[in-house]
Amino acid sequence: MAGTVTVPGSSVPSTPLLKDELDIVIPTIRNLDFLEMWRPFFQPYHLIIVQDGDPTKTIKVPEGFDYELYNRNDINRILGPKASCISFKDSACRCFGYMVSKKKYIYTIDDDCFVAKDPTGKDINALEQHIKNLLSPSTPFFFNTLYDPYREGADFVRGYPFSLREGAHTAVSHGLWLNIPDYDAPTQMVKPRERNSRYVDAVMTIPKGTLFPMCGMNLAFDRELIGAAMYFGLMGDGQPIGRYDDMWAGWCVKVICDHLSLGVKTGLPYIWHSKASNPFVNLKKEYKGIFWQEDIIPFFQNVTIPKEHDTVQKCYIYLADQVKEKLGKIDPYFVKLADAMVTWIEAWDELNPSASAAAAENGKAK
Amino acid sequence: MAGTVTVPGSSVPSTPLLKDELDIVIPTIRNLDFLEMWRPFFQPYHLIIVQDGDPTKTIKVPEGFDYELYNRNDINRILGPKASCISFKDSACRCFGYMVSKKKYIYTIDDDCFVAKDPTGKDINALEQHIKNLLSPSTPFFFNTLYDPYREGADFVRGYPFSLREGAHTAVSHGLWLNIPDYDAPTQMVKPRERNSRYVDAVMTIPKGTLFPMCGMNLAFDRELIGAAMYFGLMGDGQPIGRYDDMWAGWCVKVICDHLSLGVKTGLPYIWHSKASNPFVNLKKEYKGIFWQEDIIPFFQNVTIPKEHDTVQKCYIYLADQVKEKLGKIDPYFVKLADAMVTWIEAWDELNPSASAAAAENGKAK
Repeated sequence: MAGTVTVPGSSVPSTPLLKDELDIVIPTIRNLDFLEMWRPFFQPYHLIIVQDGDPTKTIKVPEGFDYELYNRNDINRILGPKASCISFKDSACRCFGYMVSKKKYIYTIDDDCFVAKDPTGKDINALEQHIKNLLSPSTPFFFNTLYDPYREGADFVRGYPFSLREGAHTAVSHGLWLNIPDYDAPTQMVKPRERNSRYVDAVMTIPKGTLFPMCGMNLAFDRELIGAAMYFGLMGDGQPIGRYDDMWAGWCVKVICDHLSLGVKTGLPYIWHSKASNPFVNLKKEYKGIFWQEDIIPFFQNVTIPKEHDTVQKCYIYLADQVKEKLGKIDPYFVKLADAMVTWIEAWDELNPSASAAAAENGKAK
Repeated sequence: MAGTVTVPGSSVPSTPLLKDELDIVIPTIRNLDFLEMWRPFFQPYHLIIVQDGDPTKTIKVPEGFDYELYNRNDINRILGPKASCISFKDSACRCFGYMVSKKKYIYTIDDDCFVAKDPTGKDINALEQHIKNLLSPSTPFFFNTLYDPYREGADFVRGYPFSLREGAHTAVSHGLWLNIPDYDAPTQMVKPRERNSRYVDAVMTIPKGTLFPMCGMNLAFDRELIGAAMYFGLMGDGQPIGRYDDMWAGWCVKVICDHLSLGVKTGLPYIWHSKASNPFVNLKKEYKGIFWQEDIIPFFQNVTIPKEHDTVQKCYIYLADQVKEKLGKIDPYFVKLADAMVTWIEAWDELNPSASAAAAENGKAK
């Protein structure tokens, strides 16, 4: 594995993978005691904490962690009028952390997520698994029945075309949850006691052309490859909808990854999701989304990005146009959201000038 | 579960699932001693044994099994000149068993496949799991990150459209293999000692629009829904290619399932695959397929069946036409194969007159 020095006789790498190339982004409204449990795995990394809600409140971070923290005042100061694209009173605010990071990779996790155990009882280093997922290729163009062919003990099965065995660059690694599954409010209400106890020992690529519900609870991605599309939308304070921030990002990201031949993986690692959110509060946040997604998903299934859009930014601006035109008819909210998508890209390019220049250059070179 | 009476305090159903609605099809050239190990699970079912190779040889079947056996002479007698579509000296001959069955469901298994154990050490009833897979819906239109949403302890996750939660009828259940994985000759040669020891506790739907390498070693399907497309092609004696029989069937089946909104599942159950076939012999059989699949797969990825083809038979005849036109350019073999595909359908309809009339009637009604 790139960047690892393994101590003989030990499975613990002496240098954590990608130590200087990855930021951990955490949105929160409370003290970050949950980090204590993650200390062995997270302490070597830099944290970006996005404080939601009241900016005068002090968020305590356990000693010994290297972090920067942004509250609403910071976001307003840094982005000026463009701060309007960052949600308030919703964990969607986390995407501000993606924007201010200067690293190649991001891992984002919710503050009610703890270290899970594998079936042998060993603590799962979720971050390490995400990094392995991101550093090995994806297989979006053909399905491998033995799951990740790059994993030790596995390979491509008979009938898998040899020309596709190099795979594609992996842009996203979507991890799962033991204990409280990521259910919508109606399912929470119908199955209040359901817990996820099934450990499925697999990582797989979500095939090209297939959409999936991307959850932001336990998610890693390559910021250089897809960061500019990881916008979590307008949710929470002053918006008619919540709990669709990660879904929205996931639909946009998947369509763009498919267009740019990038891979999206799901499966391992698991985290332990400790607490179900209140299903009544959730239903209030979700109910418009439950209707709207019936139109949004066919929209994303059918949108075709023209070939000439060869950077994430160009693809994203194209999607914003289409959202305004096609989804704007459903509700004025989507017109506002489309405008915010454009603002997001402007803010992204402002904070990431070299990356956006490189992207433009790359576009020209093609 | 439909048709099951469960004995209180026992997890063994007193009546095996679908006892009178499923045939087990086994292609073989040797005595079927392997059935001893399967006795607790297979004995209640009817077997269709397709004897390959020398028809004068006697195949011994362990006592107590209910079976019918067909050798080459039987195939020639039953199909007459149409017997040309059934391969000889290749396990592709098994599809003759699909054709003569009068049942709704088929399970097919190779005679070097034994009962595997789950991680708790319990014998896996592969057939029971296949039946569960076939009797519960599939989710081909959107990806569920917690795998099979119909399984106990699982459901659809947040963001899964409610309109898609009824799912689709399941046509195919593709099971996997512990011990010897289903690798092609080059991979067998490069990794002679690789064994599959990873038990992935999942069943999933292969999304619409995604092709996969279907292996015939441990496979179940709904004969009424998709049987007429389960043709294993022209392989073995007198043909330039082998070991692509199940792959060919899988590509045709998947494209037709996608067109007819039927589901294809893969994952559990595992069988124990005991013995790797000879990689040198395999390379000889496979090598043309290794080249050809580079064209065959894009062909199947791009073929679009016109809407008016609303039965499996019509879809299959359309595919045969396209194979002749598009793949015939690669090698005359595909012209011959396309003709055999048409012969297969003619023979199928001859042996299954009521089903084909019902299909035609169904077509008219639409």
